[in-house]
Amino acid sequence: MVKPLMTAGKQIETNEEFNPRLKSNSKSSVATEAKKASFEQEHRLKMKMSKIKHKVAIISGKGGVGKSTVTVNLATSFALKGHSDKVGVLDADIHGPCVPKMFGLKGQKLIGGPAGMIFPVAACEGIKVVSMDFLLPNDEAPVIWRGPMKMRAIQQFLSDIMWGELDFLFIDLPPGTGDEPLSVIQLIPDIDGVVIVTIPSEVSQAVVKKAITFSKQLGVPVIGIIENMSGFVCPECGAKLDIFKAGGGKKIAKDLSVPYLGKIPIDPAICVDSDSGTPFVAEETDSSTTKAFEEIVTKTKQFLEVPDGDE
Amino acid sequence: MVKPLMTAGKQIETNEEFNPRLKSNSKSSVATEAKKASFEQEHRLKMKMSKIKHKVAIISGKGGVGKSTVTVNLATSFALKGHSDKVGVLDADIHGPCVPKMFGLKGQKLIGGPAGMIFPVAACEGIKVVSMDFLLPNDEAPVIWRGPMKMRAIQQFLSDIMWGELDFLFIDLPPGTGDEPLSVIQLIPDIDGVVIVTIPSEVSQAVVKKAITFSKQLGVPVIGIIENMSGFVCPECGAKLDIFKAGGGKKIAKDLSVPYLGKIPIDPAICVDSDSGTPFVAEETDSSTTKAFEEIVTKTKQFLEVPDGDE
Repeated sequence: MVKPLMTAGKQIETNEEFNPRLKSNSKSSVATEAKKASFEQEHRLKMKMSKIKHKVAIISGKGGVGKSTVTVNLATSFALKGHSDKVGVLDADIHGPCVPKMFGLKGQKLIGGPAGMIFPVAACEGIKVVSMDFLLPNDEAPVIWRGPMKMRAIQQFLSDIMWGELDFLFIDLPPGTGDEPLSVIQLIPDIDGVVIVTIPSEVSQAVVKKAITFSKQLGVPVIGIIENMSGFVCPECGAKLDIFKAGGGKKIAKDLSVPYLGKIPIDPAICVDSDSGTPFVAEETDSSTTKAFEEIVTKTKQFLEVPDGDE
Repeated sequence: MVKPLMTAGKQIETNEEFNPRLKSNSKSSVATEAKKASFEQEHRLKMKMSKIKHKVAIISGKGGVGKSTVTVNLATSFALKGHSDKVGVLDADIHGPCVPKMFGLKGQKLIGGPAGMIFPVAACEGIKVVSMDFLLPNDEAPVIWRGPMKMRAIQQFLSDIMWGELDFLFIDLPPGTGDEPLSVIQLIPDIDGVVIVTIPSEVSQAVVKKAITFSKQLGVPVIGIIENMSGFVCPECGAKLDIFKAGGGKKIAKDLSVPYLGKIPIDPAICVDSDSGTPFVAEETDSSTTKAFEEIVTKTKQFLEVPDGDE
């Protein structure tokens, strides 16, 4: 009854030598060919990932805590702080890819090159972006896929895209502890760690604890927690309002003994900039929100033992 | 390397006659027994669902748009409006179940009865609640499951829980168009329709279009769109602020020719009430937010052809 939208998958799957088993017509050799293809893909993935110094996944227990916004602005902050052309972003949210819109890349497609190579789309500061969105015919098209198909897509994003030599790859994962986060963490064995995004509400915190246990059980270091949407200043009267409460991220970091990276206030300009496709930190360079991101960059670099401000 | 947390699944799986194949020791009859068990489960599911007059799924393309908050308050509104003891809520978010916390049911467990029966947990107004959360040992425990395990859990929630005779069952689905929404829609063939929740930002709207296409492709009616977090009134100075913009839900409903159910403003009291476990509409009976929910109830009843205010 339900067919996956093959339009999306096909664009990658039919790409010549990326799928050597497509060439084979002999039934008897199918198993051998499949094994060989799988081995080759694993090899390609290892090669591609070995050229990327640091891989950081952005996760959250709960959806809608601004994970994609944080990923886009964090990546841009890193690029602006001495890593221009050396940052990549993988949007691993197969069902609801938001990263392209936030980078102003809507309607773009992954670029094919010679010998079947596929290149990421370039955003501001030379950030290399890959997203399911670049493979969909339009905004309305949903990706009605169960787990194994999603696993395969992510695997291909990691193994078959020409990421090149990067200092950092940020992977924006969908919420929860299901197929996509599992796949990414199992596919990249030398991942540096995860950044966990939460909002201050208790409901959100209950779920963030699950994300921390998830990381610990899989043996992935927790780089730290970011408290997003933390407090709001009324632009009319200056009143400080805690719409989703405040301080929850810091508390949970302390309770569960993981680092706290900082908090980001609610700022209507973030929503406007996200919708218009300009990362906030590139646009509002003097705002306190941008400074909050810069502090998070510094702390993350400390964790990764990357000197701050290197060029 | 990764083992699913069987603590969760087991509590249901080992329940005697719910799983007749557990009794069989003969290898030769395993296939037959499994087939029989599957047939019996399907039969139980049909029987259970036939006693529920209306089944409504709450979906969203994007996470964190307040889907669980809307589900909990919508269910409570329905119960308060003449359907006390006749409303059920299935929290189908396996990874991040939030519904119990919002109903003040944290720490509760599903209740076993005679002959292996399992009963939902009762919330305010006799609302019957089932959630993965009731099966977890604590808040920190993540459910590290891929799709097939999640499908099975949802199937058991529908077939093996004593829901009883209900007027309405609301199913809170995790964001996206993957395993859980697919499972629910395929398992309940006579589902009345889906309510789609969005926030006004364009980024969120792009994803909501996918949810609408998803419903259309699966042949499920769209009851309508709710625009949540629509506008904010500063409690200090009364300034009207559009933190996540406003009007996007109405626009998208018009563009894609689906009904528009109404908008719910940002109200810090909602977050406080959700955290304290009291549905907002039961607590703040005179607020404009509660009135917004009541209007949505009326429109939903019109769609379902249920007379308003029936006792």
